[in-house]
Amino acid sequence: MEDVLKEKKVMHNFNAGPSVLPRSVFEQASKAVLNYNNTGLSILELGHRTKEFQAIMDEARSLVKELMNLDADHEVLFLHGGASTQFMQVPMNLLNENETAAYADTGVWSSKALKEAKLYGNVKVVCSSKEANYNFIPKDFTVPGDSKYFHITTNNTIYGTQWQSIPKVDVPLVADMCSDIFSRQRDFNSFALIFAGAQKNMGPAGVNLVVVDKNILGKVDRALPTIMDYRNHIKEGSMLNTPPVFAVYVSLLTLQWLKQQGGIDAIEKINNQKAEMLYSAIDNSTLFQTTAVKEDRSKMNVCFVMKDPSLEKQFLDVAEQHGIYGIKGHRSVGGFRASLYNALPLSSVNYLIEVMKEFEKNY
Amino acid sequence: MEDVLKEKKVMHNFNAGPSVLPRSVFEQASKAVLNYNNTGLSILELGHRTKEFQAIMDEARSLVKELMNLDADHEVLFLHGGASTQFMQVPMNLLNENETAAYADTGVWSSKALKEAKLYGNVKVVCSSKEANYNFIPKDFTVPGDSKYFHITTNNTIYGTQWQSIPKVDVPLVADMCSDIFSRQRDFNSFALIFAGAQKNMGPAGVNLVVVDKNILGKVDRALPTIMDYRNHIKEGSMLNTPPVFAVYVSLLTLQWLKQQGGIDAIEKINNQKAEMLYSAIDNSTLFQTTAVKEDRSKMNVCFVMKDPSLEKQFLDVAEQHGIYGIKGHRSVGGFRASLYNALPLSSVNYLIEVMKEFEKNY
Ligand SMILES: Cc1ncc(COP(=O)(O)O)c(C=O)c1O
Ligand SMILES: Cc1ncc(COP(=O)(O)O)c(C=O)c1O
Ligand SMILES: [Mg+2]
Ligand SMILES: [Mg+2]
Ligand SMILES: [Mg+2]
Ligand SMILES: [Mg+2]
Repeated sequence: MEDVLKEKKVMHNFNAGPSVLPRSVFEQASKAVLNYNNTGLSILELGHRTKEFQAIMDEARSLVKELMNLDADHEVLFLHGGASTQFMQVPMNLLNENETAAYADTGVWSSKALKEAKLYGNVKVVCSSKEANYNFIPKDFTVPGDSKYFHITTNNTIYGTQWQSIPKVDVPLVADMCSDIFSRQRDFNSFALIFAGAQKNMGPAGVNLVVVDKNILGKVDRALPTIMDYRNHIKEGSMLNTPPVFAVYVSLLTLQWLKQQGGIDAIEKINNQKAEMLYSAIDNSTLFQTTAVKEDRSKMNVCFVMKDPSLEKQFLDVAEQHGIYGIKGHRSVGGFRASLYNALPLSSVNYLIEVMKEFEKNY
Repeated sequence: MEDVLKEKKVMHNFNAGPSVLPRSVFEQASKAVLNYNNTGLSILELGHRTKEFQAIMDEARSLVKELMNLDADHEVLFLHGGASTQFMQVPMNLLNENETAAYADTGVWSSKALKEAKLYGNVKVVCSSKEANYNFIPKDFTVPGDSKYFHITTNNTIYGTQWQSIPKVDVPLVADMCSDIFSRQRDFNSFALIFAGAQKNMGPAGVNLVVVDKNILGKVDRALPTIMDYRNHIKEGSMLNTPPVFAVYVSLLTLQWLKQQGGIDAIEKINNQKAEMLYSAIDNSTLFQTTAVKEDRSKMNVCFVMKDPSLEKQFLDVAEQHGIYGIKGHRSVGGFRASLYNALPLSSVNYLIEVMKEFEKNY
């Protein structure tokens, strides 16, 4: 055990969110807090109505367009609030009181989302894996053709499941992509609305990415609060009010980094590799096992437990001692969760696997 | 002109928001982005459900309580979104459809606030200085005793006016304190609800401070979206969902700095001094004059114009050349606005005055 486990030079951050970002991003952000781009000003004191911040916002929005290969109908917004705000904002903007929205219930986040939608209209839960503690993605369901939209959570952060393919439906598709945005290719233009809090694959906590097909807006009867109406944010270029300047800036840095890596295609290959390595290590181990059904396993959040639960505390301690951070599973699943977001180096996955193997050998 | 104007060693940030923060805060924040408190982790990748972040949130909330001398009924929340979100959230939580809220219309921000309230109930504008381009604070008005609440904007950022004393009313008082929070003493316990975006006197853009008397909550009939119900945030200790971690952390640093300065009493003295210095320089100048009525002048935002408007461009250029930043007035008032927030050093005010005097001598 000695060799591998003694050294604790770097932290290996497997936290589910907020999460690891590229080291170069931390370095640039740290500098900008002292002196942004040689302006003599901290990024934290920079006015948002300046050419400097306008350039940050513009580049961030256009990089998202480029990386996701979005068409002209899709608008990119950086909004205040976490994804939980979108649980309300989506139905408020899209669903009339007498209309019905379809939801797939694949975890706590889906179920929180559909709860909010009920305040604005009717909700039809077209499928659910709740009975199986959300350990799989439902495949056999139909979405009524008169649904105003169909809401899915592409990756279920807590349970380690992921929609490997997006269901073909005839109604506008809305996706909570909090925990797999920018990690793999999707046909992003096939979505009417995508939202994601920054704090997994895009940046620090404190800003929401919203990608919306502008053609679906303006079709509800209710009067919308100014700050909740996506159209106002589009009209004002995502600067309807003071934006979360620093969170947008760090998101831009992370998007620039992603582009330098080769974009989503390139990162997806590495993400596949990281996930395969870890899942196969777990599958080949005598101590550990995964919780999600194999075909629906998430490439972002690997959830696993120990066959002998009494050993879990011990492994967690060993992991912690060795700089493996944020690996404790969500209380509703237990065990462990290793989040393998874009910025988590392959070497950290290797390290975790070695620690698991050493543990297996020695305990 | 030479001596004073040639040197541009430091920037003097008079921006109205986002705004200058203490240098020591920038330095601590910059370090934390690389390595928070020797955890080996960036503050940007730190999980919010950790003992480290819990300590940040707890200390930030209790420092607000301490600095504002709040009683046990008043809860402190750090919420997502800018103050514009509060324009909606306040009436949503406090005003029934058939009830009336009273608003004082003292500027664009008041008028935006009351517009949102109309979506939730009736609004009575009990006074307005709109006809005078908001250059004064109304004194002669009554607030009907059956108003659900009375909303004021304590400092009008754009027009440079400020309520020097808070009107005594028999109904719950709600205050937008965005631009004078923590800058002067008020009887904070006399307010039912106070909100302020961080980006003037408290921290970076991207978090809202809300101080609320919990006794006024739970009295509306409408079903509230989970994320909009203040009670949920109180119950969850201001961590209902992923908070804007970094913005809360930098706010904490700024609050710690304020406490080190001697708290609100001490900073108020300096703020008074800064405002008096600048106003008297303007009053004594032949070129410049203020726009707000004297008795209502803001101690935070000093709005002034030139008697000969054709000189304004020239002065702005000179100011900019000499590191005087963010001094352009809002387009609805024109001229100049020097914001003298807590973290703006007295030396910057002195410097601005010298530049004005030199300009007056030479042009
Ligand atoms: C898939 C998913 N949706 C929504 C959320 C809620 O995000 P927030 O805390 O930003 O509101 C999370 C948080 O982890 C998530 O993983
Ligand atoms: C007094 C006042 N209220 C509200 C706002 C709006 O704040 P935000 O841009 O954070 O929504 C401002 C912005 O400057 C303000 O000065
Ligand atoms: Mg989930
Ligand atoms: Mg989660
Ligand atoms: Mg104003
Ligand atoms: Mg303003």
